[in-house]
Amino acid sequence: MRTVYVNGDYLPETEARVSIFDRGFLMADGVYEVTSVLGGKLIDFAGHIARLERSLRELDMKKPAVFDDLLEIHRELVRLNGIGDGLIYLQVTRGSDGDRDFVFPDPETTEPTLVLFTQSKPGLADNPAARRGIKVIGIEDIRWGRRDIKTVQLLYPSMGKMMAQKAGADDAWMIEDGHVTEGTSNNAYIVKGNRIVTRQLSHDILHGITRAAVLRMAREAQMQVEERAFSIDEAKAADEAFVTSASAFVMPVVEIDGVAIGEGRPGPVATRLREIYLEESRKAAI
Amino acid sequence: MRTVYVNGDYLPETEARVSIFDRGFLMADGVYEVTSVLGGKLIDFAGHIARLERSLRELDMKKPAVFDDLLEIHRELVRLNGIGDGLIYLQVTRGSDGDRDFVFPDPETTEPTLVLFTQSKPGLADNPAARRGIKVIGIEDIRWGRRDIKTVQLLYPSMGKMMAQKAGADDAWMIEDGHVTEGTSNNAYIVKGNRIVTRQLSHDILHGITRAAVLRMAREAQMQVEERAFSIDEAKAADEAFVTSASAFVMPVVEIDGVAIGEGRPGPVATRLREIYLEESRKAAI
Repeated sequence: MRTVYVNGDYLPETEARVSIFDRGFLMADGVYEVTSVLGGKLIDFAGHIARLERSLRELDMKKPAVFDDLLEIHRELVRLNGIGDGLIYLQVTRGSDGDRDFVFPDPETTEPTLVLFTQSKPGLADNPAARRGIKVIGIEDIRWGRRDIKTVQLLYPSMGKMMAQKAGADDAWMIEDGHVTEGTSNNAYIVKGNRIVTRQLSHDILHGITRAAVLRMAREAQMQVEERAFSIDEAKAADEAFVTSASAFVMPVVEIDGVAIGEGRPGPVATRLREIYLEESRKAAI
Repeated sequence: MRTVYVNGDYLPETEARVSIFDRGFLMADGVYEVTSVLGGKLIDFAGHIARLERSLRELDMKKPAVFDDLLEIHRELVRLNGIGDGLIYLQVTRGSDGDRDFVFPDPETTEPTLVLFTQSKPGLADNPAARRGIKVIGIEDIRWGRRDIKTVQLLYPSMGKMMAQKAGADDAWMIEDGHVTEGTSNNAYIVKGNRIVTRQLSHDILHGITRAAVLRMAREAQMQVEERAFSIDEAKAADEAFVTSASAFVMPVVEIDGVAIGEGRPGPVATRLREIYLEESRKAAI
C-alpha cells in the first residue's frame, strides 16, 4: 500500500481522493511533473520545479502554499515508500470553489490542489527496452496549441499510445504539417551523419527537462546538435533515432512505421548519450 | 447542501470525491453532458444521452453499467434537490485501475466513473442577458482537433472566458484559419438578410444538441439556414448574431470585438428563435 500526498496529508493510496468539483477533474485545469528517482535520489529535481513554476505562471495558476517545501515532500514520499528506483508524480490543479464554472475561481479564496504519488520501478535505469530499442508509428498531432505547458490534457497522447499498441509498436511520434513534433510522452530526435537533430523549442512541444540536459551533455561531448523540425521521412532515412523523457532517459528508436532505422538496433549516439546522461544525472541527483 | 451522484451513491456534495488515480483527474480522459431543467423537467434529454453514447464510443470508453437508468438518476437528482429551473451536469471518465499509465486500463476489470450534480438556476429561461444580448471577442482557436467529442479538456475554453472577461466582454468566439469555429461553450450563428449561417458539423465543432433543435425549428418556420464557415469580419457585418447552448438556449450577441452587430441590440431572428425553442422544448420536456 503506497502512501501518497494530498493537500498536506500523507494518506494510504486507497483514501486519496479529491472533490468531484476539483477543476482538475471537471476541466483539465491542472499541470503536472514526473521526476525520476535513482538510488533513492531525485534526478533533475530543480529543472522539474522550474518548469512547474513556468506552467503555473502561464496559466495564471497560484502556487501551492507549500511550493518551497516540494523537495522535502518528494523526499518524504521516497522515504515512506522505500523507493530505490522509480518515479514521483506531482499534480497541481486550480482547486475548486465548490461548483463548476468556466470562470476561474477567486485565487484569494481558492487554494490549488496538490497531489503527489510514487511509482516504484526497480531497475528503472536498466530497462531492457534500452538495449533492444523501441518501435514507433507516426500519427497526426491534433493536440492543442500550447504543448509547452505541461497540462493534464493527456487524452490524445493516451489515445496515441493505444494506436501504437494496436499497431504492434511501443509508442507514437506525432506529426504536424509533415513534421514530427514529439512522442506521446517524450521528445524526439534523429541522428544523421554526426548531427543530432531535434525540434526547436516553441509552443509546439514540451520543453523537456531531460531534453535540455541531454543536449547540453551532447554539446559538452563535442557532438553537433541541430534544433529544427524534421519530417517523418527524414526520420525513416536517419542513421539513428531516439527519444528522451524523465522516465525513459534516452531511449533508442529502432523502427518507425515498420521501417528499420539504421541497422535496426540501438545506435552508438543514442547509446552513448544514455550512458552520459545516466552517469551525470546520478552524480547530480539530490 | 446539494445531493450529488457518484458511482451509485447519492451523497452530500461535500463528501463527493473521486480517487486521485481517476483518469478524469490525471489525464482528462472523460466526457460530459449538461442538461437543462425547466419547470422540473428535462430539456432535450434524449439528445444529450445520444451524444454521450457517441462520445463514449469515439473514445472506446465503456458505458457505465447504469447507462439505461440515467433518466431515472437525473429525475432523482431533480427531486432530491428540488430543482425547478437549473442544470444537471453529468461526467463519465474511464475510471482507474489504481495507478497512472497512458495505456487504457482493462475495460473488463475497470469500471467507468459516473458523476452527476445539479445547479439550481431559478429563472434560467428569463435570463436578462437574453434581452440585452451579450458581447463577445474573437480569440484564436487552439483546441485539439476532435471538438465533436465532448471531453473535459476545457482548459482553453475556460481561458477564453477569462480573456473575454478581461476585455469587458461576456464570452469569446474562437477563430481558426480566419473562420469562426464556435463559442467557448456554445455554437455560433450570424444572420444576414433572411439567412441564418452557422458552421457545418465536422470534427472542428461540438455537435450541439440545442443547435440541432434550433436549426430544425428554424427550417420548420420557413427560415433559410446555411451551414458553412463564416469569418469574424463577416460576423461583424451581419444583421444579427447569436449563440445556442443547452444552458443559454438561444442568446443574442450584440457586439463582437467592440463592433455593434446590426442595431446593437437583440435582433428579430434570434429573439424569435429563442421563443420558439423555449416553447417547443418546454412542451417536449420530460
